[in-house]
Amino acid sequence: MSKVNIQPLADRVLVEPAAAEEKTASGLYIPDTAKEKPQKGTVVAVGNGKKDEPLTVKVGDTVLYGKYAGTELSVEGSDYLIMREADIFAIL
Amino acid sequence: MSKVNIQPLADRVLVEPAAAEEKTASGLYIPDTAKEKPQKGTVVAVGNGKKDEPLTVKVGDTVLYGKYAGTELSVEGSDYLIMREADIFAIL
Amino acid sequence: MSKVNIQPLADRVLVEPAAAEEKTASGLYIPDTAKEKPQKGTVVAVGNGKKDEPLTVKVGDTVLYGKYAGTELSVEGSDYLIMREADIFAIL
Amino acid sequence: MSKVNIQPLADRVLVEPAAAEEKTASGLYIPDTAKEKPQKGTVVAVGNGKKDEPLTVKVGDTVLYGKYAGTELSVEGSDYLIMREADIFAIL
Amino acid sequence: MSKVNIQPLADRVLVEPAAAEEKTASGLYIPDTAKEKPQKGTVVAVGNGKKDEPLTVKVGDTVLYGKYAGTELSVEGSDYLIMREADIFAIL
Amino acid sequence: MSKVNIQPLADRVLVEPAAAEEKTASGLYIPDTAKEKPQKGTVVAVGNGKKDEPLTVKVGDTVLYGKYAGTELSVEGSDYLIMREADIFAIL
Amino acid sequence: MSKVNIQPLADRVLVEPAAAEEKTASGLYIPDTAKEKPQKGTVVAVGNGKKDEPLTVKVGDTVLYGKYAGTELSVEGSDYLIMREADIFAIL
Repeated sequence: MSKVNIQPLADRVLVEPAAAEEKTASGLYIPDTAKEKPQKGTVVAVGNGKKDEPLTVKVGDTVLYGKYAGTELSVEGSDYLIMREADIFAIL
Repeated sequence: MSKVNIQPLADRVLVEPAAAEEKTASGLYIPDTAKEKPQKGTVVAVGNGKKDEPLTVKVGDTVLYGKYAGTELSVEGSDYLIMREADIFAIL
Repeated sequence: MSKVNIQPLADRVLVEPAAAEEKTASGLYIPDTAKEKPQKGTVVAVGNGKKDEPLTVKVGDTVLYGKYAGTELSVEGSDYLIMREADIFAIL
Repeated sequence: MSKVNIQPLADRVLVEPAAAEEKTASGLYIPDTAKEKPQKGTVVAVGNGKKDEPLTVKVGDTVLYGKYAGTELSVEGSDYLIMREADIFAIL
Repeated sequence: MSKVNIQPLADRVLVEPAAAEEKTASGLYIPDTAKEKPQKGTVVAVGNGKKDEPLTVKVGDTVLYGKYAGTELSVEGSDYLIMREADIFAIL
Repeated sequence: MSKVNIQPLADRVLVEPAAAEEKTASGLYIPDTAKEKPQKGTVVAVGNGKKDEPLTVKVGDTVLYGKYAGTELSVEGSDYLIMREADIFAIL
Repeated sequence: MSKVNIQPLADRVLVEPAAAEEKTASGLYIPDTAKEKPQKGTVVAVGNGKKDEPLTVKVGDTVLYGKYAGTELSVEGSDYLIMREADIFAIL
């Protein structure tokens, strides 16, 4: 997991996507079907949440999110996605 | 029912779909009509709910949900759907 | 009225549609016009309502609902519709 | 005004439309223009309102409503419209 | 200003439109441009407002409103518009 | 700044647009690009705000607003725009 | 960072976009992909927030925002963007 100096706002989360060929310890495999396929990544920074709604995910969590979730950005050669926590389906 | 190590977020629920050819003890049969047909599955993991709205379904419940509900994912060779509780119609 | 072992969630209601040719004691007749025609059925199971909003219809009520309301499902050879209470117009 | 045995739900109201050729005591006349024309009818049954919002119209009120408001139904040979109170513009 | 026996519901207001050729004392003139042009009229009846939101306009107020606001109706030979208070821009 | 006898309702504001060729003391210039260009004007009348939300702009403020904001009206030969405060970007 | 005499309203923020060719100290680089690319800039003025929701960004913060966020304006020869805080993804 990389260390980055970015502070997401409100309910936004910065995620470092897992490499596409990576196999997880639990053997996660994304099936090849017509439905939207979730993507996997690691949370590297989180916002402070919205009023009365702190975030659930923490830095270091491995998360699943939608294929089209978030906005790409690159810091010092690494690619990240910044997305809303609502775009995250689950913590692995 | 499989055991999986996935924690759905907020109002999301992880469901293991029933095999298409399976017959339930109560003889459930999905008619072949023009309307959307509900699907049947077993809840294998649930989120913590939203603020002031805990979830109703529990792990182990057999549930009905819409044909297009949720997002497919596969863990250790088993296929699951992750969906919002609002996509679930009823508990059998 | 059939007895079914299904627990609708939240504001959902399970309705057994009346046979199309049935005549009600009150002589209800659905006119053949361009407007949406309400359908008639019997409530066989109800959800627990939403937070602070218990349901109004009870098991056994005869209800009117929109033609396209709900999702069809069949249990032990009988056809039902599962719909939200908001899809129900009135109790006869 | 007819007597009907129908209980509208929540904010719904059952209205018996006035005959198209009828003239009101106050000489109401609906002009023939491009704008939506209100229709006139008599309230024959009202729901219990929504949480914290009782209904304003009462059984017996003559009301104006939009041309496309509501759903038609017929009971014992009489035609009615069931609509939401928000579809009613005014009480005459 | 006419006297009419109509009770608008909730946040609705009954307005008697000013004659198109009329000049106001303050010399109001609606310019001929591509933008929506406000219309002028006199309030002849008001609803009781919504919960916790009484209406601001009073009977007798001269008001400006959007060209396409409201629904036309005619009582005893006079034409009126019934609209929501939110369709009114300002009091002259 | 003109003096007008118009009372905007709720969160509406009456603005006298600055002449298109006018240069502000601070040298404001609207660039010629594909993005929406803000317009400049002077507030001449303000509404009383909505429940619990008084307005921020005051009579006399020079404000920036979107090109398509508001509705044109003309009083005694002067042109104005009536718009919602939310259409105003900033006070100069 | 320029000094400007503009007071954004409510949840709006005035941002001075970074020059396109500029390299940040942290080596930020926006990848050339199909996804929306965030832009970088410096906050030069902030609104007072909405009721119960003060703003998080401060004058001087370097922020990331969507490519199509905000409205362009130019003061004394410098170009700015005025946008809502919700259009800002993160603080660098």
